[in-house]
Amino acid sequence: MDQLDQAILSNGAAAYVGYASSIDPDMRYLTRFQTTDPVLFLKRPGERGLVVVSQMEYARAASESTFSPLTRGEAGLFTHWKDPSDRWAAMAAAIAGLAKGDVLVPPSFPIALARGLESHCRVIVDDGTIQRLRAVKVPGEVQEIRSVQRANEAAMAAAIGLIRAAEVRDGLLVLGGEALTAERVRAECHVTLLAHGCRAADTIVACGEQSALPHLRGTGPLAADEPIVIDIFPEDELSGYFADMTRTVVKGEPSPEVRSMFVAVRDAKALALSRIRAGASGAEVHQAVVDHFAAQGYATEGQAGFTHNLGHGVGLEVHELPTLGPVGGPLEAGNVVTVEPGLYLPGVGGVRLEDMGLVTADGFENFTRFDEELVL
Amino acid sequence: MDQLDQAILSNGAAAYVGYASSIDPDMRYLTRFQTTDPVLFLKRPGERGLVVVSQMEYARAASESTFSPLTRGEAGLFTHWKDPSDRWAAMAAAIAGLAKGDVLVPPSFPIALARGLESHCRVIVDDGTIQRLRAVKVPGEVQEIRSVQRANEAAMAAAIGLIRAAEVRDGLLVLGGEALTAERVRAECHVTLLAHGCRAADTIVACGEQSALPHLRGTGPLAADEPIVIDIFPEDELSGYFADMTRTVVKGEPSPEVRSMFVAVRDAKALALSRIRAGASGAEVHQAVVDHFAAQGYATEGQAGFTHNLGHGVGLEVHELPTLGPVGGPLEAGNVVTVEPGLYLPGVGGVRLEDMGLVTADGFENFTRFDEELVL
Repeated sequence: MDQLDQAILSNGAAAYVGYASSIDPDMRYLTRFQTTDPVLFLKRPGERGLVVVSQMEYARAASESTFSPLTRGEAGLFTHWKDPSDRWAAMAAAIAGLAKGDVLVPPSFPIALARGLESHCRVIVDDGTIQRLRAVKVPGEVQEIRSVQRANEAAMAAAIGLIRAAEVRDGLLVLGGEALTAERVRAECHVTLLAHGCRAADTIVACGEQSALPHLRGTGPLAADEPIVIDIFPEDELSGYFADMTRTVVKGEPSPEVRSMFVAVRDAKALALSRIRAGASGAEVHQAVVDHFAAQGYATEGQAGFTHNLGHGVGLEVHELPTLGPVGGPLEAGNVVTVEPGLYLPGVGGVRLEDMGLVTADGFENFTRFDEELVL
Repeated sequence: MDQLDQAILSNGAAAYVGYASSIDPDMRYLTRFQTTDPVLFLKRPGERGLVVVSQMEYARAASESTFSPLTRGEAGLFTHWKDPSDRWAAMAAAIAGLAKGDVLVPPSFPIALARGLESHCRVIVDDGTIQRLRAVKVPGEVQEIRSVQRANEAAMAAAIGLIRAAEVRDGLLVLGGEALTAERVRAECHVTLLAHGCRAADTIVACGEQSALPHLRGTGPLAADEPIVIDIFPEDELSGYFADMTRTVVKGEPSPEVRSMFVAVRDAKALALSRIRAGASGAEVHQAVVDHFAAQGYATEGQAGFTHNLGHGVGLEVHELPTLGPVGGPLEAGNVVTVEPGLYLPGVGGVRLEDMGLVTADGFENFTRFDEELVL
C-alpha cells in the first residue's frame, strides 16, 4: 500500500476514501472483503486502513478483511444521521471526522457522497492509482488466475466434448436424442465451473450467423458446418479473480471462408504473442495484428472484419488494464492479458481465438494450454 | 419513464445521464441492456432515451435494449478524445453535446465524469428517482421474481434433502460415505439453480457456532443437533431479478434454547406478515418484531439477539428499497420485500426464517411456499 500512501501525499490529501461493495474491483482489491452492501474504506498515510461495515458484518470483516473494521456506530455515522434523507450528509460528516483533512477519492466515487464531503474538505479525484496497482500482479494473484484458467479449460473441454459427441441430423447437432443447443452447452460449462469453485455469466456459445456478432451470448440449436464461438470468462467464487479464453470449432465441414479466417486468426494470435514483452506498447501489438489482417484483405474498421481490441488485462475484473488496442500504453512485467484476435463477416460468421497469460521482462508466459482445433 | 421526465424537469435539467455497466441496477432497469463494460445512458424529456455503446456492442444493443443505441463514434466521443488520459473529459464533452443543457445524474454517478461535465453545464444530483421507481414493481417484474422464487425453493429443497438423507456419525453428518459439508450443500443449491437458469453467490450454509454470525457463508462439516441456517438469494441469469429466502434446520435434536429461538422467530415472522400492507411503515413493522423479541427476553441491540433489519426490498438488487428497519418509510403496493427475523446467540447459534412477497393495498401476498420445519 506504499503506492496508495504516495498518491495520497502527492495529491496533498490527508486520506484516501472509497465507498462501494466488493462488486467494485478496486474496493475488493483494497479490502479483500466480500460484501453485497457498500462499505466505506479509509486510509491515512502511515496508518492502517479501516473499513466501516454494518454491525452484523463486523465479526466477518474482522476475520476476512485486510484492514481493521469499525462499525457504523463507532465511525460516528449515527451521530450525524438525523433522518433517512440525511444518508449521504451523515456519511460525509463521519468521513470528515476520520479523514481529518482533504480526501483523495477514486474516479468512480459517488457524486452524492463527494458533494456531501465538499462542505467539509476538498475532494481530489485520483487518476487511477488503484487500477494501475491492480494491473501489475503479485505472484499470489498470478497463482489465483492460473488456477481459474485450469477450471476454464475443464469447462471448455466439457463444451467441446458435447459438440464432438453430437450427431448431425438435417444439418443440426443432436446428442442423446435431443437438439444440442447453445443453452445446453452453456449449462455444461457452468456446471463444470461450479465443480471447480468458479462461476461464469454470459458465456458465449454462438453459432453461424450469431457468431458474426462478437458479444452475442448465442441461443438455440447448434448447426453443423458452421463456426461455433465459445468464449468463457469465469470468476473464482472465493478469490474473485477471473480467467478468459475463446475457441472456435466446427462440427462437420467449414466453408473455405471460415477455414481462411481461422488460419488468419491463429496466425494473428501467434504474431501478437511473439510481440508481447515488458516495454512493448499495447497499441503496437494491436497494430501488428491490424496490419496482418489488412495484408490479407480483411477489413479492420467498421462492422465487419477485425472489429475490436486485440486484448485486455484480466484480474478482479474480466476487462481491466492494460489495453491491447489503439490507445494501449506500455506493457509491464506482471500484467496478465488476453490476446484475442477475431474476424467477423455478416452472412458467414465469426472466428475468435483467445489465450491469456503473463507479460514478463522478455516475453509472454501463456497460461492457456488448450488445442486450437477448428474441425471436430 | 414519465417519472424520469418529471424528475428532469422539476430539477431544471435538460437531460438525465447515467454511466455504468448493467451491474448497476439502475442502469439495468433503465436500459434493460446487459453488459460488462459501462455504457452511457442519456434521456431528454419527451424524447426517446439513448444508450452509447462500443461499436462491437451496437447490433446487440439494437436488439436487446429499450432504447436506441448510438456508437461512441456517433456520439462524438472520438472527436474529443485526444489521448488516453482525456477519457473522462472526452466523454463529458460528448455528453454535453447530446444533453444540450444542465444534466441530472444519479447519486452513484462517477465523480470523475461529473467533474468533466461541470466545465460544460450544471450537474444536479438526483435524490433517488430510479431507486424509487424500481421499488414499485409492475406485474411483469412480479412475475419474474416469483419465477426466481420457484427456482429458489427447488434449491432449498435440494439442500434440505441432502441434510435429511444424511446419517450421523460421531456427531457429524455423513452422506454416501463422505462428510456432508457446507460446501457440498452449497454446490447442490447452485447446480439446482443453474438448471433453472439462475445463479447464486455466497449462499449461506452455516452450522452451529457459524450460524451465530448472520452473514457468514459457512464452511466445513455439518454437525448433528446444531442449527443449520440456509440462506439462498439467486438471480435469474437473463432477467437479472433476484429472490431471497432462508430456512433453519437441525438434523437430530435441537437444544432447548434453539427450540425456543425457533418458535420466537417463527412467531415474529407471522406477526410481521400480518402487519404489512400499503401505508404501514417499514419502521413500525420492524418495531413490532423488536417488541415481540424484547417481551421474550431477547436482546435487540448489540452483537447478540435480533441484530439486523427485519427486511428489505428485492428486485434487480437483492437488497433494495424499501427498508423494513428503524429508518423505513411507508410501504407501497407493488413493493416486493423480505421478512427475515433472526436471533443469534454466541455459543448457541442462530435461527433465521425469511419469506418474500408482494405488498398489496390490504396486506401481503407471500411468494414463498416452503415448510418451516426445524427438526429433520
